[in-house]
Amino acid sequence: MMKAAIFLALALLVSAYHVDAQCLIDNAVDLKVQAAVSSIVSSTLAKAKLFCQNVSARGALVSCPGGYKATACSCGMACGSWDIRSDATCHCQCGGIDWTSARCCKIGVE
Amino acid sequence: MMKAAIFLALALLVSAYHVDAQCLIDNAVDLKVQAAVSSIVSSTLAKAKLFCQNVSARGALVSCPGGYKATACSCGMACGSWDIRSDATCHCQCGGIDWTSARCCKIGVE
Amino acid sequence: MMKAAIFLALALLVSAYHVDAQCLIDNAVDLKVQAAVSSIVSSTLAKAKLFCQNVSARGALVSCPGGYKATACSCGMACGSWDIRSDATCHCQCGGIDWTSARCCKIGVE
Repeated sequence: MMKAAIFLALALLVSAYHVDAQCLIDNAVDLKVQAAVSSIVSSTLAKAKLFCQNVSARGALVSCPGGYKATACSCGMACGSWDIRSDATCHCQCGGIDWTSARCCKIGVE
Repeated sequence: MMKAAIFLALALLVSAYHVDAQCLIDNAVDLKVQAAVSSIVSSTLAKAKLFCQNVSARGALVSCPGGYKATACSCGMACGSWDIRSDATCHCQCGGIDWTSARCCKIGVE
Repeated sequence: MMKAAIFLALALLVSAYHVDAQCLIDNAVDLKVQAAVSSIVSSTLAKAKLFCQNVSARGALVSCPGGYKATACSCGMACGSWDIRSDATCHCQCGGIDWTSARCCKIGVE
């Protein structure tokens, strides 16, 4: 009888510990996850930069390389009238344009 | 006496396990968090893109939609003199400008 | 003999629980990490913005502040022909340029 009582007491102890452990795990994970994620996310975001390059061509049209978006165009003959087609192609509008240049940027990680 | 000794031994065993489990949890969480976070952060950052659009209007002023910043302006009459007001409004400076266009960009996730 | 058997049974119970706890930890951490990371990453990315400013100077050259990239240039005398040097310096190409302005942008977190 006495032995059965000890066994029972220990079984209760172990199962009570089981619940307690889950709470401990939950809280520990919550705290650790939040701390780790915040620090990794902000250090990674700090490495996100604009990567830009110029592309030039003869004539009134020039396109950015794949993955880049045109942020502006520059035109020969002092022309300041231009438009951007399909997000990545510069078109200078003045007649008889000799050269067109595109400023092309994308987001990248250093 | 003997039973009390067994009980004590088991109680010690369980509490020693308690400390051990916390270490296990700590280490497992550390490793898992770092691996998971790094992979999710870099795959998410890889989806961060520049989203750009053109906005045009008659006259010498045009504004980008909410959330967009002007990266450049284009002006009618071949005019290349412009300025950007309040981060999002293009202003062409030549007299009698017929149209003004803004290149508007923001960061978004694909 | 009987006491040894109880001790053995309990030792087995505790070590079986040990394995079980590791699985519980693994699964709980996996789920928690993924949920937490996804939500933190996307809320942090949502705070990533383009920060832009204009910089002007007399003459044909002007440079962006450190950390900024030039996305476009504007020139005095209605000139629309320009180029960007070293990613951050605007150069207006028309002769006798009176002023040059750079549109400078970077990625930052609000």
